[in-house]
Amino acid sequence: MKNLLGGKGANLAEMTNMGIPVPAGLTITTDVCTYYYENNYLFPDDLESKLKSAIGKIESAMGKSFGDVNDPLLLSVRSGARQSMPGMMETVLNVGLTSETIPGLIVKTDNPRFVYDAYRRLIMMYSDVVMEKAAGIEPDEGHGIRHQLESILNAYKIEKGYSSDIDLTAEDWSKLSGAFKSRIKNVLGSNFPDDPYEQLWGGIKAVFQSWNGKRAISYRRIEKIPDEWGTAVNVQAMVFGNTGDRSATGVAFTRNPATGENKFYGEWLQNAQGEDVVAGIRTPHPLNEATRTDASAGLESLETFLPDVYSQLDSIRTNLERHYADMQDIEFTIENGNLWMLQTRTGKRTGTAAIKMTVDMVAEAMISKEEGITRVSPNQIDELLHPRLDIEEEKSAPVIAKGLPAGPGGGVGRVVFTADDAETWAKDGKKVILVREETSPEDVHGMHAAEAILTAKGGMTSHAALVARGWGKCCIVGCSALNIDFGKKAMDVNGEKIKEGDWISMNGTKGTIYLDQLILQPADPEANESYRELMAWADEIRTLKVRTNADSPEDSKQAIAFGAEGIGLCRTEHMFFDPQRITAMRKMILAENRSERRNAVMELLPFQREDFKGIFEAMAGKPVTIRLLDPPLHEFITLNDEQVSELATELGVPPAKINSRINSLHELNPMLGHRGCRLGVAYPEITEMQARAIFEATAELNNVGVEAMPEVMIPLIGTHTEFENQEKIVRRIAEDVMMEKKIQFDYLVGTMIELPRACLTADEVAQRAEFFSFGTNDLTQTTYGFSRDDIGGFLPDYLENNILTHDPFQSLDQIGVGQLVRMAVEKGRKVKKDLKIGICGEHGGDPDSVEFCHQNGLDYVSCSPFRVPVARLAAAHAALKAFDKRYI
Amino acid sequence: MKNLLGGKGANLAEMTNMGIPVPAGLTITTDVCTYYYENNYLFPDDLESKLKSAIGKIESAMGKSFGDVNDPLLLSVRSGARQSMPGMMETVLNVGLTSETIPGLIVKTDNPRFVYDAYRRLIMMYSDVVMEKAAGIEPDEGHGIRHQLESILNAYKIEKGYSSDIDLTAEDWSKLSGAFKSRIKNVLGSNFPDDPYEQLWGGIKAVFQSWNGKRAISYRRIEKIPDEWGTAVNVQAMVFGNTGDRSATGVAFTRNPATGENKFYGEWLQNAQGEDVVAGIRTPHPLNEATRTDASAGLESLETFLPDVYSQLDSIRTNLERHYADMQDIEFTIENGNLWMLQTRTGKRTGTAAIKMTVDMVAEAMISKEEGITRVSPNQIDELLHPRLDIEEEKSAPVIAKGLPAGPGGGVGRVVFTADDAETWAKDGKKVILVREETSPEDVHGMHAAEAILTAKGGMTSHAALVARGWGKCCIVGCSALNIDFGKKAMDVNGEKIKEGDWISMNGTKGTIYLDQLILQPADPEANESYRELMAWADEIRTLKVRTNADSPEDSKQAIAFGAEGIGLCRTEHMFFDPQRITAMRKMILAENRSERRNAVMELLPFQREDFKGIFEAMAGKPVTIRLLDPPLHEFITLNDEQVSELATELGVPPAKINSRINSLHELNPMLGHRGCRLGVAYPEITEMQARAIFEATAELNNVGVEAMPEVMIPLIGTHTEFENQEKIVRRIAEDVMMEKKIQFDYLVGTMIELPRACLTADEVAQRAEFFSFGTNDLTQTTYGFSRDDIGGFLPDYLENNILTHDPFQSLDQIGVGQLVRMAVEKGRKVKKDLKIGICGEHGGDPDSVEFCHQNGLDYVSCSPFRVPVARLAAAHAALKAFDKRYI
Repeated sequence: MKNLLGGKGANLAEMTNMGIPVPAGLTITTDVCTYYYENNYLFPDDLESKLKSAIGKIESAMGKSFGDVNDPLLLSVRSGARQSMPGMMETVLNVGLTSETIPGLIVKTDNPRFVYDAYRRLIMMYSDVVMEKAAGIEPDEGHGIRHQLESILNAYKIEKGYSSDIDLTAEDWSKLSGAFKSRIKNVLGSNFPDDPYEQLWGGIKAVFQSWNGKRAISYRRIEKIPDEWGTAVNVQAMVFGNTGDRSATGVAFTRNPATGENKFYGEWLQNAQGEDVVAGIRTPHPLNEATRTDASAGLESLETFLPDVYSQLDSIRTNLERHYADMQDIEFTIENGNLWMLQTRTGKRTGTAAIKMTVDMVAEAMISKEEGITRVSPNQIDELLHPRLDIEEEKSAPVIAKGLPAGPGGGVGRVVFTADDAETWAKDGKKVILVREETSPEDVHGMHAAEAILTAKGGMTSHAALVARGWGKCCIVGCSALNIDFGKKAMDVNGEKIKEGDWISMNGTKGTIYLDQLILQPADPEANESYRELMAWADEIRTLKVRTNADSPEDSKQAIAFGAEGIGLCRTEHMFFDPQRITAMRKMILAENRSERRNAVMELLPFQREDFKGIFEAMAGKPVTIRLLDPPLHEFITLNDEQVSELATELGVPPAKINSRINSLHELNPMLGHRGCRLGVAYPEITEMQARAIFEATAELNNVGVEAMPEVMIPLIGTHTEFENQEKIVRRIAEDVMMEKKIQFDYLVGTMIELPRACLTADEVAQRAEFFSFGTNDLTQTTYGFSRDDIGGFLPDYLENNILTHDPFQSLDQIGVGQLVRMAVEKGRKVKKDLKIGICGEHGGDPDSVEFCHQNGLDYVSCSPFRVPVARLAAAHAALKAFDKRYI
Repeated sequence: MKNLLGGKGANLAEMTNMGIPVPAGLTITTDVCTYYYENNYLFPDDLESKLKSAIGKIESAMGKSFGDVNDPLLLSVRSGARQSMPGMMETVLNVGLTSETIPGLIVKTDNPRFVYDAYRRLIMMYSDVVMEKAAGIEPDEGHGIRHQLESILNAYKIEKGYSSDIDLTAEDWSKLSGAFKSRIKNVLGSNFPDDPYEQLWGGIKAVFQSWNGKRAISYRRIEKIPDEWGTAVNVQAMVFGNTGDRSATGVAFTRNPATGENKFYGEWLQNAQGEDVVAGIRTPHPLNEATRTDASAGLESLETFLPDVYSQLDSIRTNLERHYADMQDIEFTIENGNLWMLQTRTGKRTGTAAIKMTVDMVAEAMISKEEGITRVSPNQIDELLHPRLDIEEEKSAPVIAKGLPAGPGGGVGRVVFTADDAETWAKDGKKVILVREETSPEDVHGMHAAEAILTAKGGMTSHAALVARGWGKCCIVGCSALNIDFGKKAMDVNGEKIKEGDWISMNGTKGTIYLDQLILQPADPEANESYRELMAWADEIRTLKVRTNADSPEDSKQAIAFGAEGIGLCRTEHMFFDPQRITAMRKMILAENRSERRNAVMELLPFQREDFKGIFEAMAGKPVTIRLLDPPLHEFITLNDEQVSELATELGVPPAKINSRINSLHELNPMLGHRGCRLGVAYPEITEMQARAIFEATAELNNVGVEAMPEVMIPLIGTHTEFENQEKIVRRIAEDVMMEKKIQFDYLVGTMIELPRACLTADEVAQRAEFFSFGTNDLTQTTYGFSRDDIGGFLPDYLENNILTHDPFQSLDQIGVGQLVRMAVEKGRKVKKDLKIGICGEHGGDPDSVEFCHQNGLDYVSCSPFRVPVARLAAAHAALKAFDKRYI
């Protein structure tokens, strides 16, 4: 009943049912929260009577009464949503302490210091969480009531010469409580409530209010938690870990959450409350001897200090893990030697740990393989595929700037500001990070040489991002804090002056940048046995094939190593930037007539043929989808004055002619300009040359017994007539090559579906096309009218204002863009039942998008080599979800 | 049976049925043509026998036999498609003249000169039309067999000292026939056929072949005639207008095709064949006295020369016009005093004539009003709305360059190369034509001052085109022949040097440019009574409302005069370019924070308020749809260095700051960038200011009894959340203004549907939006992925290769873009049954698109003022077509 009781409430009820010692409590359900927000912040009429009756039951279970002047029951009030939102919502403890109940509790516990300490904790927490919010005050950070009370406490300690809270006596705490209450009255204008039920209702309201606190809302946005779920409120009898030396409190994980090792792992503190463990003021002790580390040397473990309690806890650990069949994150309190469990929930874990635990638990017959696979989120796999900054080092390093996390993993190197410098420095054995305003195809050699790439502009699918992800390279883009002075080879980053050669470190998974050289941990997933096993299971289960986007033999090999089953997108344009080739390309662009252009373009044939041979060989008979030339021609002649005169000399034409051609190729919106198949229509000789290179490579390899399976892809089709125009050329060349080389070979001609009109007329296009491959980057651009290069100008506002829940270039927009994809699949398959359909946009490596592809009957997804394992696992998840609702 | 017989064949059959003298003939139907192309250029098996039997019938009707050596029947072979394609296909005359039939015909006619003349005509025509094509020869222009034979003829005439063909004797023609045949044998490699049936089959094939000739294909593309219609072939007995002095030939229109005047109008020549009248070698005579002009003074009319025949012809004229209930274009031949009708077809006419004839024929009770309305094509109306170049002058002026016809009508003026010069010269009373590479909002003052606008770049919906059409101003764009040297204020146009101050003339309807100052005919449609009457009928019949796109009181008044029923698109950005305002706009753009930005933007409030008041007043209570700021901000700060330093001084900021902001606003694809509602989301103060200006204007006018009906339009919505974000601001301001001004007023908040995603999610958007207005320009851009500014780079290739049948920015793509429009209408109305829906893209003035809007249940179309009458008529057509299939 997690949806109604929240995670915490449900687990407390569950533990109670299991006979585990849990302080008695009640849960106000999430639908009360929904009611509260739908009814102008009012509670249901019967809530009060129901609450009173439930508190009656707590009283009898605990043998104490709420507000009793002799033996008062104290309560905690805690939030508990369907899905854990750690630290995002409010908690109030020690509710029920008033001027009337304090004396009785002192008598009962014979511990005035504990009671006054509890009271001041209530005051500090309650004034902050309940009263300040209720007063509608939103103080600047560091000026809230909590901060003011802490200042009073600090001043008091200085006055008294105390070094720690432990030094304060009962009297001190009592005095401070008085001082706190006066300050509260002064600042917030109302008295601290002295009625137990008033405190209780205030706490309940505060928890509900905190559901719509700023932090909670932004957390929900990131985690995609719906606003309408609401939170439950757990009201529970207080037990105390700070009532004396045989009291304690602790948190633990049933297995190691960082490594996945099957050892009981946790921390505890003697005579303390839960918040003390987390606060980090006192160093926590290790739970047991087996998990003791250097840091906890010399600190007594619970295992040795209270062996009976530890053994009881250890057996609860086993019970809980068996019961929930997953690693649990638990909180406990020992009150005068009695163990109380305060919470159990599924524990968060690193990717490495998730994989290990899963494989172990399957081996322990605790869960099935299928269940195990769903336990590891595809993005957790990614962690294993890239080097990472050392976690501990990163924790203590200050973030100097943030950008968009475009290429995951860590990167450490010296800053350089040009691609040429990057290459030169790298040749000298230096590790560099290439910093640019934005990158272009002309920077590729420097990007390749660099450890990591950092740009001031661009979005998640900008040139830098695409290229870096393709190589699995750390990359941060759109970091607007960079203020680069290319002349001086230096930059200002939020006030930090960084010059060429200075070390910086980057976390491309989070988008954070640090000064100096942090430690980098290398990646080697195949060395991880659990990883290999898990991926083998995933491959058994998934039905969606996973291909890769690769355009070199090296990338192809990398992708095969990661499990790719073919190439879904081989871009051919990168092949033209090599110095030997770019001149021929430029000659082609500058040609005056068709025959001149044909001559120039044919100079490229031997290069392209060798490119394709290398890739076909690397793929060893797996299908290779080759996209014909796509980018606008001006990308090949962005030249400065000097380069223009060099080229002019080389080609024997006046520089003015080159400049005039460059000028005529300039476009206002190149994304919507003369590119894709529009190039092939205007310059059929380009299509001819590329088709010939593909088919000659195929024929030559087949002739020596190496299988090659080319799938020729016509890009940017908007009308079936465009496809037919280009298809005719490709098929004619295929026939020619078969005749010339005296060999028959198989090939397909299909198209990239990346424009709304292609989806709308997919039935027409499928008449002739043998496959569809969705280019969802461009499809997202045109469906939304968002330029992926310019989205940085408004995306932050859109996320901020909840206009978009996520960047549609990262995860496919299933409502809009997805509607077009579904339409194209339906229309295409209506005409051609077994039409091969894949996706080759960046979304091919996004787990949610992979699931969408599976649901909509695609045959494969294609993504950059480093996303292949992620997609394999995501495809297995999708298959499981479709097969059995339990896995959703 | 026009579809089967073709227009000519059907009309010949029809005339025969009416008892009008027509030479006997047969028609090979269009489905034979289709068969021919589908079956690899073969005829149906039974064609030969059917043809022979039909020729038998012709023989008995005419009392002559085909191939008879004594009294041979001669035949003509002519094309005849469903829809007339004048001059696009082939004709062969005098088929049946051979070495065997010539002597008999000479005996029979006693006119050897006529016979040999006929024979040489057959040879010249047949060798060109049939033999050269069959030989697969495509000679360069001026080098074909026809040209060679004409050279022989000319050489012969020079040798003999003849000045005209009339001088040649029978012997001369006979000799020439021999020379022609030898040359044919030499050049084409085969003998001239001497068998009548061989000649006949050759002619039939040639006609079918000509259906797929280059000219015919490109004509069909322009006229949107489907390729699969095919042509019929008409084989008809020859009659001769050149057998002697009582023979003649002529063409006539049953009413004047230029003015529409109800007078029999035509030309004839004595002793001539039809082609002589058209060829222009001899000056044709007037048909009658009533239509005699200065040019035909002194030439005898048929009315006086052969009064009986004229009177027979005149009565046939009346019969034909009554029968077809439309003006006819007829051809006749008089053979030895006997009148033969060779052809009747509905005559082509000018717009002015179409309107006058229609209104007259309705008055004559010849046709109904409904029928009459469909007789005038909406584009013919356009002719009346703009000044035009004098037709005769234009005919004789050489075209120096062609571009895209972006703004119809004529324009004559002196060339200037900058907007400032245009303004200065115009102030001095000089008429100027502004010539630019392309225009930008900063050129608008010069564009306004100019008579016409000419640009080297841009497409039909480029800035220049949009602005010029809005003003009804002559404009040609994308004229790539312009080679402008702005430094020298001169240009080279296909070798013509044109410098500042030189006169040029432009036909913006055709896209043609001429040297010198041609005569310009002014426009005044309202002075045309027939026009007024026709438009009144159209308004009675149409159900689709017609609004206008206007953003000034002047344009609004113009549009009202043209019959606009509201403003469908009032763009607000043009209002910001006034010097007083642009500075505030730039301050706003350069503001460092929200409050600075708000202050700057609020400086614009009084200006905007006055703008809206002016427009509301002009529209007098008619609805005014106002689009909130749409273009990317960088359009407002495209500055050169000098302007930057001026602005820096004015605003008291360093120039570097301005440059840095300009730089940061630069976008790779501004069309898909930070514009539309994305501006309002990022800078809500802009939306607030604009909403306030609109509502304050509304309130102030309502308070003084002037009705104002604002419809606030949020641009570029892709998600319903964007709409809701902006709508909230607009409604809040409306409430505020009502409170402040103490008045209630009506207003709507709706959105522009111009992105595929808005269509796909129209059901979500319609939850809150009160109206939709399709922005089909942008919708076409994103659906096709075509930038309208850059389409010039590939559109010509696309039209050339039949990949597109028309520019989708001119006429709505009903298959792709239209599918999205239909989807949005359906989804929107599913949620809100009576959702108001219009269209405000450039398509709103395109007749086909207007029909599409009517069919799909839109409430209104909106177009530039000068297209309003066109749209009104198109809307009436659409209503008639929907009501009665006869009108399709």
